[in-house]
Amino acid sequence: MDKKEWNTVRLDPVAGNGLLDRRGLLVAASLGSIGGLALQPAWAAGELAVEPWMTHPGSPFVGYGQPSKFEGKVVRTFMSAPGTTGTGSSRTPLHFLNGTITPNGLHFERHHSGIPDIDPDAHRLLIHGLVKRPLVFTLDALARYPMETRIAFIECGGNSGALYQKDPAPLGLQALHGLVSCAEWTGVRLATLLDEAGVDPQAQWLLAEGADAAGMSRSIPMAKAMDDAMLALYQNGERVRPSNGYPLRLLLPGYEGNMNVKWLRRLKLTQRPTMTKDETSKYTILLPSGKSLQFVFPIEAKSVITHPSPGMNLKGRGLYEVSGLAWSGYGKITRVDVSADGGKSWTPAALQEPVLAKALTRFRVPWRWDGGPAVLQSRATDNFGYVQPPRDALIAERGARTIYHFNGIASWAIDEHGEVKHVFA
Amino acid sequence: MDKKEWNTVRLDPVAGNGLLDRRGLLVAASLGSIGGLALQPAWAAGELAVEPWMTHPGSPFVGYGQPSKFEGKVVRTFMSAPGTTGTGSSRTPLHFLNGTITPNGLHFERHHSGIPDIDPDAHRLLIHGLVKRPLVFTLDALARYPMETRIAFIECGGNSGALYQKDPAPLGLQALHGLVSCAEWTGVRLATLLDEAGVDPQAQWLLAEGADAAGMSRSIPMAKAMDDAMLALYQNGERVRPSNGYPLRLLLPGYEGNMNVKWLRRLKLTQRPTMTKDETSKYTILLPSGKSLQFVFPIEAKSVITHPSPGMNLKGRGLYEVSGLAWSGYGKITRVDVSADGGKSWTPAALQEPVLAKALTRFRVPWRWDGGPAVLQSRATDNFGYVQPPRDALIAERGARTIYHFNGIASWAIDEHGEVKHVFA
Repeated sequence: MDKKEWNTVRLDPVAGNGLLDRRGLLVAASLGSIGGLALQPAWAAGELAVEPWMTHPGSPFVGYGQPSKFEGKVVRTFMSAPGTTGTGSSRTPLHFLNGTITPNGLHFERHHSGIPDIDPDAHRLLIHGLVKRPLVFTLDALARYPMETRIAFIECGGNSGALYQKDPAPLGLQALHGLVSCAEWTGVRLATLLDEAGVDPQAQWLLAEGADAAGMSRSIPMAKAMDDAMLALYQNGERVRPSNGYPLRLLLPGYEGNMNVKWLRRLKLTQRPTMTKDETSKYTILLPSGKSLQFVFPIEAKSVITHPSPGMNLKGRGLYEVSGLAWSGYGKITRVDVSADGGKSWTPAALQEPVLAKALTRFRVPWRWDGGPAVLQSRATDNFGYVQPPRDALIAERGARTIYHFNGIASWAIDEHGEVKHVFA
Repeated sequence: MDKKEWNTVRLDPVAGNGLLDRRGLLVAASLGSIGGLALQPAWAAGELAVEPWMTHPGSPFVGYGQPSKFEGKVVRTFMSAPGTTGTGSSRTPLHFLNGTITPNGLHFERHHSGIPDIDPDAHRLLIHGLVKRPLVFTLDALARYPMETRIAFIECGGNSGALYQKDPAPLGLQALHGLVSCAEWTGVRLATLLDEAGVDPQAQWLLAEGADAAGMSRSIPMAKAMDDAMLALYQNGERVRPSNGYPLRLLLPGYEGNMNVKWLRRLKLTQRPTMTKDETSKYTILLPSGKSLQFVFPIEAKSVITHPSPGMNLKGRGLYEVSGLAWSGYGKITRVDVSADGGKSWTPAALQEPVLAKALTRFRVPWRWDGGPAVLQSRATDNFGYVQPPRDALIAERGARTIYHFNGIASWAIDEHGEVKHVFA
């Protein structure tokens, strides 16, 4: 098979409406056939213009750097409850980001009474309740314990809640799905401290309480606490930011964001769940029957296309890379399928290695847009064989009286002008 | 074997001066024998005090977040050449960080004429020289190409140069070894664009030039350009910062930092290296013979202990975690050995998974300090079987008339007061 044939094979559509083999673009590139994207002016073989910033020395060093002033639009958007400044949520601008790590300044937030200004020297962590030895830790003491590092996503249980609504909200990726972020976390395994405190065999649950004015608190199953729960001290290398729980955050990889209690001050081991306001009036799933699902902890497998996404405009027909994020609170993403014809046909996307459990996974697939209408969708599968459901199937099972744990397939429609819009398909 | 025996086995020293088995601390913890770190006051079983920050709503949301005001000391330190503000380097505070990712605000810098303030809409990348089709790319055009993501360290060729000196500089980790950082990079594989331009078979080298006032430029072997070289647009999810090359940086995973040309504007394919000032007068290794080693590109396997490190004080005898970073520009770290007796005996440290090629790898090993003098060292091995050399051996081979590519073993001495100092051992 010569190169010409590879070209033919690889650039043949593998699913409807122009989706190409995930290995296709590199081959296309190696044959010089992406074409039309680079400028090829007459002066290309000569020298570039000397731009103004090359004519004088640049800016000096600073201790802690910031993004370019030209990236001022890359910020979190936020809404607070009336009369408050800090009760609400802020959303990550996923449409402006790439890769899988969320920089600390852009990690989403959900606060129940603003961001407390905690002096780390005064902060304490109490472990009590059904333990042999109640313990109080300073941060200096915690820093002596063995640490571990892992990359994990956190997603608010209410992320994508607008997709339960009857009509598609005319919003973008950030507003619809921006309550998920991913970071490298480092801290002490919770099991290490619980072992030191000595767990009473009767303890089945654990109350985790934050040091914010809301005293935000949740009940955690002891099995999770002894598994991969972490007391996170560092986020992407530096100390956790105030908006993410400085000086200490509970990390429960894969569990809904609200349970990853920020500003952690107290862990009380109990026989039964404490039934805090945050797990009774909130973060429960109201079913059509009138009953509620309580204690739905892990985030089910889910994905969303970030490029292109609503608000973007495709600039003419031709080759594009469709790219997005997939994640599962149960484990690893094993497959992401992408459709360009609203789910009639699918092709597997390339997954960026290393694929890590309970972390965001970047997927990519090449697409030749023919200039006609298209509906882009993505569908994640995790290592338990669980497949992200169509929106209709999810709502048929669960109803639409809740805002939590929406993980149905999202759809972006593209019209003949290249405009991308949120639709239900 | 009952738990008592495990305890005995695992907490027996595995190397001189108190180094314990790398799996030891978790076992110790599960038997409640770390001991003495947590406070156990009489009121521990009761309630913690209500701290002032719990008595009123906290701060509001902001678009782009910052670290806690209590972490004001966690900044880069920097030195500029006399009469300039931006010709010099800034160093990452590795002693304050943990995990492996460096947050963007703290990534080290080395500038040759400050940080240019580049308008991304005006910026162009020219590919010319020995190509069939010279090409010019806007950033919008580059964004259309297939992307890839990888975690990679960048280390300045001059990092750790002070260890060539006759006497150990009385400095800390940041000043001695702070010219290395690690980030998740996303961009377009350089090979994709070179294939589109059409490489003339005579092209063996490639000149990479930055858009700073220094026009910093280096010659890159074509083999590297066609291998894993990337045109990086994103760093830790967001657009590369101005201090790291906004809007476009050449990433050459594992090659000395200077070659990862920032503010990339031009790639010229050539038959021979261009012999720029930055690869003749600088970034060459002057040997005792008077000859120079030129074009020494990959960073050899290396490691350094970050916790504890000079300037820290151990707070009493007992259990500590010795933790550090290892890296190799050739591939993966396969092993890090740690010594507490200045190299007389060694034990393998635990490596944090996933271990990635050409990325920082965090290693950890438990240590029981008996309160006496100790000298901590770490020694990295990579997947080519290359072992980080003792300082003496490195200098015996290479001399001490250079500041570049120091990768010898570093030594931290601890005295009976717990004070940590940089020594040669």
